[in-house]
Formats: sequence, C-alpha cells, structure tokens
Amino acid sequence: MTTAHQAPGETRPGGRTARTRRAVLDAVFEELGEDGFATLTMERVAQRSGVHLATLYRRWRSVDKIVCELLTDMSSGVPLPDTGTLPGDLRALAHGIARFYGAARARGLIEAVVAAAARDPQAATALRDFFDERLVLAGAMVVRAVERGELPEDTDPKAVMAALGAPFYYQILIARRPVEPELAESAALAVWAAARAGAYGTRGGGAEDAGAPGRAD
Amino acid sequence: MTTAHQAPGETRPGGRTARTRRAVLDAVFEELGEDGFATLTMERVAQRSGVHLATLYRRWRSVDKIVCELLTDMSSGVPLPDTGTLPGDLRALAHGIARFYGAARARGLIEAVVAAAARDPQAATALRDFFDERLVLAGAMVVRAVERGELPEDTDPKAVMAALGAPFYYQILIARRPVEPELAESAALAVWAAARAGAYGTRGGGAEDAGAPGRAD
Repeated sequence: MTTAHQAPGETRPGGRTARTRRAVLDAVFEELGEDGFATLTMERVAQRSGVHLATLYRRWRSVDKIVCELLTDMSSGVPLPDTGTLPGDLRALAHGIARFYGAARARGLIEAVVAAAARDPQAATALRDFFDERLVLAGAMVVRAVERGELPEDTDPKAVMAALGAPFYYQILIARRPVEPELAESAALAVWAAARAGAYGTRGGGAEDAGAPGRAD
Repeated sequence: MTTAHQAPGETRPGGRTARTRRAVLDAVFEELGEDGFATLTMERVAQRSGVHLATLYRRWRSVDKIVCELLTDMSSGVPLPDTGTLPGDLRALAHGIARFYGAARARGLIEAVVAAAARDPQAATALRDFFDERLVLAGAMVVRAVERGELPEDTDPKAVMAALGAPFYYQILIARRPVEPELAESAALAVWAAARAGAYGTRGGGAEDAGAPGRAD
C-alpha cells in the first residue's frame, strides 16, 4: 500500500504530502503489530516508512502524535450495522469490534494511544473526543431501538454503546489477552439484557425493577 | 503517614527498608494525584519521598516498576463484600470500586500502570497477574450466588467480575472522565441482569434465551 502511494509519476506537492502521511501511518500500524508500542521510535518509523526523520519530527513531533492520528484514521475500521433489531445490531457491532481488535496491531494501537494519553494532555483530549464521536454515531442503533419500542424511552444511547465496548478494552488493556469472538457474543447479550432491565436509563428506572440491585439489599 | 514511618527510634535495617518503600509508594501516589503520570519522574519521587535518587534507581530501576508495585500495594483498597445476595454484593463492590477510582490519584495509578505495561513486558505481566488474582478472589461472590441458585450453574465467576469492572476502566482510560456513583449503580444492575440472562455462561446458555441476540437476527 505504501509502495503504491509512492509510485512515480504523481508528484503534486499535495499528493506527496498525502503519500507521506499514508506511508507513516502504515509504517506505525505495521510496527505496532510486530513489536507493539514498547519499541516504537521515530527512528523505526522513519526506517520503515522511508520518510526522513526530520520530516517526521517537523510534522508530528512525537510517536504519541502519530498514534493519535492513526487512531482517527482507523475510525472506519469498525462498520456500524443496521439489521432491523437492536439485538442484531449489537451482535453485528460486537463482532465488528472483535474482528478489528482480533489483530495484534489494532490492540497495540489502542494500547499506544492510551499510553500516549497518560503522558500527553493533547493525546488524552484526542482519545476522549474520538470515542465521544464514535459513541454518538453508534448510538443511532439505540435511538432506532427506542423508536421500535425495544428499549425504555429514557435509555441513554451513549451509555449503551460504552457498555458494549467496555469489555473489549478491559480485555486488551487490563486482562491483556487476545480478543475472541466469544467475547463479542457475551458483550452483545449482556448489553441487550442490561439495557432491557433499565441499566442505562437516565431516570435510573432499572432500580425500580424487582430483583434489581437497588431493591435486593 | 510517611512521616510517621520515619519517626526516630526505629532504626532496624528491616524497618528502614520498609519505611523507605512506604515513603516512595506514598510519594508516587501523591504525585499521581497532583499531576498524574505525565510529569512523574524518579527525580520528583526522590524529592517528595526524601529517598536518595541512587536508592530509587538501585531498587526500582524506573517509575514503571514503582507504579506496578504501588498497584499491588493498593490491592486492599477495594473490599470484597458478602451481603447475602449477589445483587447486594455486586452493588457493594461496584460502589467500592467507584469510591476507590473517585480519587484522581487512583485513576492516575491505573493509567500509569497501563502506560507502563505498554512499554515494559514485565509491567504488562504484573498488571495481568494482579487482575487475574483479584478476579478469582472477587469471583467468590458469584460462586456463592450459584450455590444459592441466583445464577445459572455454568456462570463463569471471572467473566462476571471482569464485566463489573470493565465500565470503570472504560470510563477512566477511554472516556477519560471522573467516576461517579451513578456508574456503580448502572454497572451492578447491568451485570446482574446480564448474568441472569446467561451472558457469562460457559455453555453459552444465554443464546438459548428468547430475545437473546443469538435468536434475534
């Protein structure tokens, strides 16, 4: 892919800038898949991408900035389904997330971005804003579900989407194990059952349910 | 607390070693609360703890090693309840987690450990092992619940406990917002509803339920 972008003939400055960016992002993604973030340096990115070290520092300043740009670049990596039912949409999205994070380089990317955010407030803001936007977009499936009467009217779409994603980030960042399709099945079923029980209701309606924690102790 | 440990009179080498460790861990925890991991350096730890920089490097080699040791030291920070019902236990544990991570320094600690794990395989192993152990210990409440007939017999205790913790780590590391008590209510109700629906069953029993994602699309 990098090579294709560097084909001779195209020499417009804009084209060259775009090719440079693509080459750098591809190189970082490949590095994350091979050795992860631990060994990622500007020198290795320069070597793999064929982009001059000075250009990398001038444009990105640090690997932290590059991994954040790569995260945004990957946003289309997980498609948002519309199957006609919320259980179907949750299951399709969960399997999409599982497929994406099934690749070591994708797990390395999110780990790298979180590590960057721990050191760099700009990276932290980029990470938060990226997921905020994703939650709003993905929340459309919850809005449709409420309109279809599948969920309580006070269900918070972003809370449902955060709950669907949470088990994957726990698995990658905390449990530190590969992401298996079984996790997608579990996450989709869990969020569906929890949402129907009112766990993501803005009026805390769930606590009114018989057998809900709110009533049980 | 640090000062108390440094009271004169105690001068046994063992005592001094323990005091040094305590002073360093306390200093790191305070630093994480004030400026987070971004500005945490061995120099700042030495300054705040009153422990010589050479001693810090000889004993821990890096701030990554210190934050991992601090995580283990904090393990008693969240008590494991036994209220007599699983909804009660889930709710009590979720509020315990919310109280612990309600403090900025605790959020800074987990962020620091995850960032350390991204760079240092030993830190990654320490993080994974720490949570594995916590999940097994906390899983006792699920074992009791199955014995009481509150949950399906094939429920995986570690999966339930991971699901209870996941929303907090998502909130801290990905959404990057403070942890509120509402998140504890939502997490406890969600896990209770999901576990009853069979979402954490080792035989995937949940997919058999009417309305489960497995059946809906």
